[in-house]
Amino acid sequence: MFEHTNYTMLLDFYELTMANGYFKAGKKDEIAYFDVFFRDIPDGGGYAIAAGLEEVIDYIKNLKFTEKDIEYLRGKKLFSEEFLEYLRNFRFTGDIYAIPEGTPVFPREPMMVVRAPSMEAQLIETFILLALNHQSLIATKASRIVRAANGRVVSEFGARRAQGAESSIYGARAAYIGGCHSTSNTIADRDFGVNASGTMAHAWVQMFDTEYEAFETYCRIYPHNATLLIDTYNVMKSGLPNAIRAFKEILVPQGIHNFAVRLDSGDITYLTKKIRAELIRQGLPECKIIVSNSLDEHIIRDIIAQGAEVDGFGVGERLITAKSNPVFGGVYKLVAVEKNGTIIPKIKISENPEKITNPHFKKIYRIYDNESGEAVADLLCVHDEVFDGTEPIELFHPQHIWKRKTLTNYHLRELLVPIFKNGECVYESPSTEEIRTYCQSQIDLLWDEVKRFENPHTYYVDLSQKLWDLKQNMLLGK
Amino acid sequence: MFEHTNYTMLLDFYELTMANGYFKAGKKDEIAYFDVFFRDIPDGGGYAIAAGLEEVIDYIKNLKFTEKDIEYLRGKKLFSEEFLEYLRNFRFTGDIYAIPEGTPVFPREPMMVVRAPSMEAQLIETFILLALNHQSLIATKASRIVRAANGRVVSEFGARRAQGAESSIYGARAAYIGGCHSTSNTIADRDFGVNASGTMAHAWVQMFDTEYEAFETYCRIYPHNATLLIDTYNVMKSGLPNAIRAFKEILVPQGIHNFAVRLDSGDITYLTKKIRAELIRQGLPECKIIVSNSLDEHIIRDIIAQGAEVDGFGVGERLITAKSNPVFGGVYKLVAVEKNGTIIPKIKISENPEKITNPHFKKIYRIYDNESGEAVADLLCVHDEVFDGTEPIELFHPQHIWKRKTLTNYHLRELLVPIFKNGECVYESPSTEEIRTYCQSQIDLLWDEVKRFENPHTYYVDLSQKLWDLKQNMLLGK
Repeated sequence: MFEHTNYTMLLDFYELTMANGYFKAGKKDEIAYFDVFFRDIPDGGGYAIAAGLEEVIDYIKNLKFTEKDIEYLRGKKLFSEEFLEYLRNFRFTGDIYAIPEGTPVFPREPMMVVRAPSMEAQLIETFILLALNHQSLIATKASRIVRAANGRVVSEFGARRAQGAESSIYGARAAYIGGCHSTSNTIADRDFGVNASGTMAHAWVQMFDTEYEAFETYCRIYPHNATLLIDTYNVMKSGLPNAIRAFKEILVPQGIHNFAVRLDSGDITYLTKKIRAELIRQGLPECKIIVSNSLDEHIIRDIIAQGAEVDGFGVGERLITAKSNPVFGGVYKLVAVEKNGTIIPKIKISENPEKITNPHFKKIYRIYDNESGEAVADLLCVHDEVFDGTEPIELFHPQHIWKRKTLTNYHLRELLVPIFKNGECVYESPSTEEIRTYCQSQIDLLWDEVKRFENPHTYYVDLSQKLWDLKQNMLLGK
Repeated sequence: MFEHTNYTMLLDFYELTMANGYFKAGKKDEIAYFDVFFRDIPDGGGYAIAAGLEEVIDYIKNLKFTEKDIEYLRGKKLFSEEFLEYLRNFRFTGDIYAIPEGTPVFPREPMMVVRAPSMEAQLIETFILLALNHQSLIATKASRIVRAANGRVVSEFGARRAQGAESSIYGARAAYIGGCHSTSNTIADRDFGVNASGTMAHAWVQMFDTEYEAFETYCRIYPHNATLLIDTYNVMKSGLPNAIRAFKEILVPQGIHNFAVRLDSGDITYLTKKIRAELIRQGLPECKIIVSNSLDEHIIRDIIAQGAEVDGFGVGERLITAKSNPVFGGVYKLVAVEKNGTIIPKIKISENPEKITNPHFKKIYRIYDNESGEAVADLLCVHDEVFDGTEPIELFHPQHIWKRKTLTNYHLRELLVPIFKNGECVYESPSTEEIRTYCQSQIDLLWDEVKRFENPHTYYVDLSQKLWDLKQNMLLGK
């Protein structure tokens, strides 16, 4: 577990003005329900991967306004002493439900539901969004890149280009969940068990009088971890011949054959074909070829299609920042309040139909076809609806409601699981390794059409008849 | 000062394999010189803003491998006990020079120079790049956005979409350095003095039975901080009339007039014109109009050109992630080593001329025209060259060397200042406020042509004759 600093004060200032306002307006104990959901899948993809829950749990467990924080807030001359006293003893007392990390998720379904006194729910908004948005973004991007690599190893190499230190650490974790095989990030290995790997930079080669001396020295020190970087001077004229010589003189005589060369510049397709041919000619077909240099899913797919001879990819800045689409637009919207124990659904209306929220405290079922085993749709329902798979179920498109389909041979699974109950954590996070394995198993249950890079099939996220009726009535002002 | 966790282990794994290798190869005390520089300005801009130095200083001062770290590394079975013992007592003993935060910087000039035993220089590479890359990226983006706003207030609102917690905090700091006026990020205010502001989200409005009740309650609690969000239901039919009523009934009778409305959706140009007209018609011309919703420099410039009636912008995800170009490509390249007290320049050769490094331990002079006061060029020199402004100086383009120009009436300033000497910090970071003021003063000294958004003039970064000759000779293998 990565031990970060106390982030209780990492919140948008308006959470504090609103919380103090609820306090003053006598609404502090009024229970509110908030959904976290997103509207668009990054890069126009067909699915996203939920991640970041463990970070949220860690944050909620460690909430604590310090005396220094209280003092700082008092200086703002906006908050009542009663409110500051409340903050001094602040802890989360509500319930949280979430879709487990590694699960494929889709637009407009709640990845997380917070039920808590309005002040509490408000004060934790910023961090929840930040953690879920960041890690889901990177896990989703990693899943695309790993899919493009089509079985070849993908290592996350982006620390130096990450947006801040934690971005590199949690990013490495999220990339692993999304399917990467390793990282360059040592702290992510230490704290999350994401296997860290690495051998040399150009500086190593330059520190020696000759390239061969650099390679020879490296092979002697690390005979079982010899990936030599061959593009400091000239790949075909110097880097590759020197690497081959070092392998043959130092490693092969010891019976060691798990060596590799790495290329960090130049035309990958052209060079790797020439490198492979030369390695074979030199009797070293076992030598792996690793490439890096501004890669992403599109370049990887292209160079594989062109026959590049690559065994592994090191992916840096375009993964750790999700460069082509660096924002995961999760939002936190009020969906209900409780009055005298009754849940009153709330809706946010907008000129833009895409921005209208799904009201009420909800649950989600993922529906699987019994024959193929594949996921066919997610069904959003009101919290007290129960579907157990014994009755035929009629699904319909929430806008084009004439598009209907009845399923009979199916089973279902509730996606939202309890994380906190009355402020107590009731969930044990799986290991990063287990989440990664689960993620792959869940992606395997999606239709291939959903997994396309371009124009994927839109996975169905439907509303139950009860929820649909409720929403329509609210829109009509009934 | 933001107190983050111990980041000594936040390094690419290859820094450790290289460092252990230098140790084994008898090179651990060999002095190496590394430059941090970048090749391209984000978004095709004409200048970047240096930021992140304070974070680097904080990191260097607190370097410490813990016993747990040593134990973890031992488990990798790659490192010698002597090396692990060395890490146990590791601290930085070298020199660091850097261009102060807030300075406009340009491609291929060193923003930082590290002179240290090779192992030390290698172990700090990842974090130095990460911090400078991240904060320079955001400061540069903020400078563009603030310039587009043309005097109007710009607030940084991006925490929930930042890539990790620290990204939001240091990002808010960097955005402030680049010219933003405030942030939504409370912790950035507490720790860096970046003024935090904020009032309400849609949830506040929804928590009340009516929109008017929400506004009225807010104005009563925060009469001097009343920015009302008017787009929860319908801006012109409900949000604005309710806000005007609350202002007139609660604030105006108290003689309070510094209120505002905020718009977070819809067509900004169209709506703000209508809002302004209505405010004037209602006798409230003093009411400020604040807008947010996926803004960046291009949208801001467009809506201002179209006559939008906006007093302030809240800029979120597109600033805090530098969405259009989320990577600042700073690199860390070996430029020299010392042998027996003599500095031996090193060069990294590449097929791509852009990727060839400027060798040697260098200094940078920024040259200002005495008449206009403006910066005309930066001159990279060998460390022992001295220019004092008394002699005419001939500048020439490093590729097109026939392009020459002699300056006579000029003064100059060295950009790289000492930060660490023999491991001791010799630099005191200015306050965030001072850095911000300095940044603006330095941008004011750039030609307008350099500050264009599209096709800006390329600011001159030239080499001294001595440095140019050295580089040519190294490229020719002399």
